[in-house]
Amino acid sequence: MNAPADPNFAVRIRASFGRQKAMSLIGASLTVVEPGQVEVALPYRHDLTQQKGFIHGGIIGMIADTACGYAAYSLMPADSSLVTVEYKINILAPARASLVARGEVLRAGRTLTVTRGEVYSEDGKHVASMQQTLMMLPGTPDTPE
Amino acid sequence: MNAPADPNFAVRIRASFGRQKAMSLIGASLTVVEPGQVEVALPYRHDLTQQKGFIHGGIIGMIADTACGYAAYSLMPADSSLVTVEYKINILAPARASLVARGEVLRAGRTLTVTRGEVYSEDGKHVASMQQTLMMLPGTPDTPE
Amino acid sequence: MNAPADPNFAVRIRASFGRQKAMSLIGASLTVVEPGQVEVALPYRHDLTQQKGFIHGGIIGMIADTACGYAAYSLMPADSSLVTVEYKINILAPARASLVARGEVLRAGRTLTVTRGEVYSEDGKHVASMQQTLMMLPGTPDTPE
Amino acid sequence: MNAPADPNFAVRIRASFGRQKAMSLIGASLTVVEPGQVEVALPYRHDLTQQKGFIHGGIIGMIADTACGYAAYSLMPADSSLVTVEYKINILAPARASLVARGEVLRAGRTLTVTRGEVYSEDGKHVASMQQTLMMLPGTPDTPE
Repeated sequence: MNAPADPNFAVRIRASFGRQKAMSLIGASLTVVEPGQVEVALPYRHDLTQQKGFIHGGIIGMIADTACGYAAYSLMPADSSLVTVEYKINILAPARASLVARGEVLRAGRTLTVTRGEVYSEDGKHVASMQQTLMMLPGTPDTPE
Repeated sequence: MNAPADPNFAVRIRASFGRQKAMSLIGASLTVVEPGQVEVALPYRHDLTQQKGFIHGGIIGMIADTACGYAAYSLMPADSSLVTVEYKINILAPARASLVARGEVLRAGRTLTVTRGEVYSEDGKHVASMQQTLMMLPGTPDTPE
Repeated sequence: MNAPADPNFAVRIRASFGRQKAMSLIGASLTVVEPGQVEVALPYRHDLTQQKGFIHGGIIGMIADTACGYAAYSLMPADSSLVTVEYKINILAPARASLVARGEVLRAGRTLTVTRGEVYSEDGKHVASMQQTLMMLPGTPDTPE
Repeated sequence: MNAPADPNFAVRIRASFGRQKAMSLIGASLTVVEPGQVEVALPYRHDLTQQKGFIHGGIIGMIADTACGYAAYSLMPADSSLVTVEYKINILAPARASLVARGEVLRAGRTLTVTRGEVYSEDGKHVASMQQTLMMLPGTPDTPE
């Protein structure tokens, strides 16, 4: 259904993810890169937790935001970059385990893309659901200025 | 307007924040703790950035989520803990600078509290706006089980 | 997966929907009532439009909010009622046609239920996506006080 | 702070609101039109209620969406129109009274505008809070095609 504008999208996304220092900081990696669908894995680490020992809700948001953003980016032209306009996340269950965030495109418009993300823990628990809006910046490099 | 149920709320919140390993990881600190209002500061660091060199949107969400959560917690009884139900954040401008997230309580209900958060960069730019819902867990310790 | 706590849930929901004067006002009807899944249909009417002749985004929100709310209510005990805590909706495409809103339960917790809604037009266009949070009020009648 | 691009913005907005059949249907009127700030009033009517006799949450969303949208539109050029990208609303308290929705602009960008809305009942109760995103369509008439 969703045809990528750039056949080389997976290479482009892996390079972009590699420049995300924040993903290195938390130990996240890119596991699936398909047209309109991307997964980010996050092994459990004690230094990712909040006061009660669960993974911080903001960290859950980080990996969902990233998975959804790259799902959107997979359908965009090679010379574009994108920004997150907004996201909304429901935390469905606390997690003290490794996580996977799956992002997928709901609608890819000319300027705006709407995505949805799900976060699961390795024991199959549904941890969070996101709905996100992104804006494409045509002719803008996806690298530091 | 908002009277804290626990006169000792600031000590309780500082201790709770101190247990948030994820806040240490990103270098965030608690700067203001008032009844219904909390601020979290985040010095700029290169390892907090996304692919274009701006602070990662998920990191912005993390500090806003935390500031808003503790704003809510400041009005709750000493023997309670809380969970983030959901949050929604608009990223208003990209940031390559130190940030401050301000959370405040919109409505403190018996079970649910609704908060709002603003994130500013040190040069005064309005970086993000959040609206968040939290649930109080009465008689539940705010520490790892 | 989702077992209704009340075998009579469909009758209860149809009666509740029948008391929603706002649904009569806009001409909406309840078309599907399954455990954890509810559909609301809205025939196109000129008096439901905004300034450009499309169905008002708030009306789209109304039927999605209602479909999602009853999806949640279908799994709740007979003596409970519920309130919408919050919802977030993305308008994916303008609509000048009859609509169907489908609500389904993502997670039914003891106090809170999280749902998701999709709105389609009769020509199969994906018009909107919602994510919603509801709170169960145990032992509270679902009728005017 | 917010300078309107079109000095005639109030006339333009009142005409646009007048074309919103959905606002006539529910009996809403435009009470304040300032640069970046708009209010919509909704007298209580029995036919706007949900199953428990309170104003339907979707109706509350409708007037907040409209007030916020026109707050955004007040700062846009005369030859533009706009669409609601998404909105998120927290219902803070049930209402069985006349309402006022106040929308104001948080950030007016070139393409996207972010707004915030508050809904109060006539007895001063804070009923709902909204955060909304809109997109400007340059050179597009704000009338039916």
